[in-house]
Amino acid sequence: MPELRKDPIRDRWVIFSPERLRRPQPVRLVLDTPVEDHDPFLEGREHLTPPEVFAIREGLESLDGAGNQANGPGWKVRVVPNRFPALRVEGNLGKEPYGLFDWMNGIGAHEVVIETPRPDVELHDLDLASVGLVFKAWRARMLDLENDKRLVCFQVFKNSGPLAGATLPHAHSQIMALPFVPHELQMMLNHASRHQAHKDRNLFSDVLREELRDGRRVITQNHGFVGYCPYASSLPFEMVIQPRVSAPWFSQASDHDLLLAADLLRRLLRRLAQGLDRPSFNVILYTAPIARGSGESAYRSFCWHLRILPRLAGYAGFEWASGHCINPVLPEEAAAFLRGGLSDD
Amino acid sequence: MPELRKDPIRDRWVIFSPERLRRPQPVRLVLDTPVEDHDPFLEGREHLTPPEVFAIREGLESLDGAGNQANGPGWKVRVVPNRFPALRVEGNLGKEPYGLFDWMNGIGAHEVVIETPRPDVELHDLDLASVGLVFKAWRARMLDLENDKRLVCFQVFKNSGPLAGATLPHAHSQIMALPFVPHELQMMLNHASRHQAHKDRNLFSDVLREELRDGRRVITQNHGFVGYCPYASSLPFEMVIQPRVSAPWFSQASDHDLLLAADLLRRLLRRLAQGLDRPSFNVILYTAPIARGSGESAYRSFCWHLRILPRLAGYAGFEWASGHCINPVLPEEAAAFLRGGLSDD
Repeated sequence: MPELRKDPIRDRWVIFSPERLRRPQPVRLVLDTPVEDHDPFLEGREHLTPPEVFAIREGLESLDGAGNQANGPGWKVRVVPNRFPALRVEGNLGKEPYGLFDWMNGIGAHEVVIETPRPDVELHDLDLASVGLVFKAWRARMLDLENDKRLVCFQVFKNSGPLAGATLPHAHSQIMALPFVPHELQMMLNHASRHQAHKDRNLFSDVLREELRDGRRVITQNHGFVGYCPYASSLPFEMVIQPRVSAPWFSQASDHDLLLAADLLRRLLRRLAQGLDRPSFNVILYTAPIARGSGESAYRSFCWHLRILPRLAGYAGFEWASGHCINPVLPEEAAAFLRGGLSDD
Repeated sequence: MPELRKDPIRDRWVIFSPERLRRPQPVRLVLDTPVEDHDPFLEGREHLTPPEVFAIREGLESLDGAGNQANGPGWKVRVVPNRFPALRVEGNLGKEPYGLFDWMNGIGAHEVVIETPRPDVELHDLDLASVGLVFKAWRARMLDLENDKRLVCFQVFKNSGPLAGATLPHAHSQIMALPFVPHELQMMLNHASRHQAHKDRNLFSDVLREELRDGRRVITQNHGFVGYCPYASSLPFEMVIQPRVSAPWFSQASDHDLLLAADLLRRLLRRLAQGLDRPSFNVILYTAPIARGSGESAYRSFCWHLRILPRLAGYAGFEWASGHCINPVLPEEAAAFLRGGLSDD
């Protein structure tokens, strides 16, 4: 059973999940990718994963066995519980003191979104409609999991390539529903609400206005979203996809919004793959904690957004030690490179 | 010229250092280590590094050209400026607004401590006296750099092995002197002073008392320091070396303290190397910001300590996204493994 422990010095929760030791391949220096024979996400091998909790088949969204073909082939996007979950849905939170320390049960959800039945493509190799379906799957799972009152927050992310922590090459993303607000998100919430209180303006809108005014870090945009390399990018070629109109929750986005966001994600990832020879990368979704009455207004100053982190280098001692990154590439240069001479299709 | 930029959403400084692009080898998936022919830290190749700022030769500590053999062979520990510095000593801080954003010059120091003239050993392969000399070199450089009023804080760390971000296999550590307090340290300072204010007790002493009372996570100790796997370890086999008596500054430690700390570091790293087949690892020193009159009392609740981070896996999307780690190994088990059946020598 996984569990959570809070470091009293860092004031930060750590998830303990001994089961993840049993994963087929510890993430070490992996240069070979597993052969297709062992791909559990392939169409026709649905029995190799836990039963699906959501799938899109021929344009139909079918929840948990609702479709008569559930757990068979014919799907476009398929969501299954992680076989090696960091958190589990079963049980009670059971918060307890442990001497000086704080403890709670590792309650949560950890699901895998299989983005395509094809084994040989990444997300951005798909057509726009298919990328849109992945976002619809994220949203559908979030709307369902929001009903679980023990869960507080989502962390959705995608690992692609060995340097990004991927253990399987088949295109997939992961949804974690957490019983706490993660540190990074909490910092952002604090700063956004402080900005709102001091200036009576939305921090995310202010940043976007500044990025658009300057323009040198903007890569591409459509009428719903802007894709840019942020002024203080942590990593070389880091990119953000931000809605033009600030909105706290991804799960409240319309179909139209999702398609516009998918358009930018697909275009930016294609530029990255083309320009840097398909590097490892992470995609991270930041969205406000689940709104439940009183907490809701506090999240109004947050804006959901996507962050693309190309993983060209490791995470060394300084970054670990300090919480700060050393970035060798100015975002103006990164954006110019990603804009210039590369095509979106 | 490197520069610093503050992310207004994360409220966190990022160091931009375009020069680091010119490093010989970008840290990608490196399985081969550079051959000895290219080792710039080898005795007799002192001309391949910038001139030394400190060295210990035959028991003598010689500062910046003071010894008549400076930049020649015969040294035991040698400190040189990093050839690819993330920060530079020359110039003014020049803090400026940049539209909505905050900017400052990349002022600081970035030095390399060459821990031994031998190319084929790691720090823990050395005898105790030699490990002690490395700590004396750290302390000497900190005491010197503390005179620079633009510098606020030190981050000392060691990368060993490709997964820990090391680009050279020759044993070395790095000292960065920063013009800001890093996020991780600031969090710890906040929590320690909050604890002190609320409970009138030292947070670090409370944690150490609890670890000693429980005992299951303690690996080894001497009369000055305790080595343990912390209750909420971020990584498998993570270890902390903490003074029994809380003290804010490493630079104020006595020769005797340094030797006792070196004893534990050496023993713990040897156990790690023996038990886990010489994995990649980082060593991190946390020490309070430089004391300058008024700020000094605020740091009294902090305690300097060393953190050993074995790097058995990569840093994946979830960790990046959330600021939280998923750790598959309980510290009680890690400590039992590191205690049992392994010898210190």
